[in-house]
Amino acid sequence: MSTVFHKIVSGEIPCYKIYEDDDFLAFLDINPKCDGHTLLIPKTPAKWVWDVEKYTEYFEVARKIVRHYQKVTGNDLVVMKVVGVDVPYAHIHILPYDENYGRGRSTLTPEKAHQIMKKFSMIN
Amino acid sequence: MSTVFHKIVSGEIPCYKIYEDDDFLAFLDINPKCDGHTLLIPKTPAKWVWDVEKYTEYFEVARKIVRHYQKVTGNDLVVMKVVGVDVPYAHIHILPYDENYGRGRSTLTPEKAHQIMKKFSMIN
Repeated sequence: MSTVFHKIVSGEIPCYKIYEDDDFLAFLDINPKCDGHTLLIPKTPAKWVWDVEKYTEYFEVARKIVRHYQKVTGNDLVVMKVVGVDVPYAHIHILPYDENYGRGRSTLTPEKAHQIMKKFSMIN
Repeated sequence: MSTVFHKIVSGEIPCYKIYEDDDFLAFLDINPKCDGHTLLIPKTPAKWVWDVEKYTEYFEVARKIVRHYQKVTGNDLVVMKVVGVDVPYAHIHILPYDENYGRGRSTLTPEKAHQIMKKFSMIN
């Protein structure tokens, strides 16, 4: 079974890359609930977050991203959600809290993405 | 500052205990969003989950509880949320997905709690 996340990892589908190392990849959600709404996935497929081989490293990377977002937004509150109903490929939602939080999902236009990337991306 | 979670750890406020070890405590949310809605907190106070000293152990315990809930419910889907707007004391929400999920919060009566504890508690 090949999900959209398999295709993002393989490069078949492009993404707005926030963070990358040998094992994990983080990118902007294209239907964000807030500015900087990010998805963090393992490069080795797993159905659930709980099944990810490098589980503790996975949450260490999540914290690294959260720390970065706290810094760039100046807001301590960053929400993390592990749900997984939508795509059967392990993913962690990271959502920097802001005044728009809770407005529901929007569509990430290329212009908006460019602006978000300048602020949130950890890749130079 | 003393929150309700400080008082639960000290034993000043009682709770329906799901899991306990030297460093962490898990108990039923008294306004649950689903059956088995659980809060997992560190015994040593920290404002945010990201500040918890034994951070990786914290998520290992979360996974241990999730694995148990998958078993007792027969449902693979267990949701995890780290929010933290309500109480400034690190806590992880663990929510076993069921047909009532998303119904909003309810009140945990002692009768209901007794029934939930029989199914979900990891303490004999």
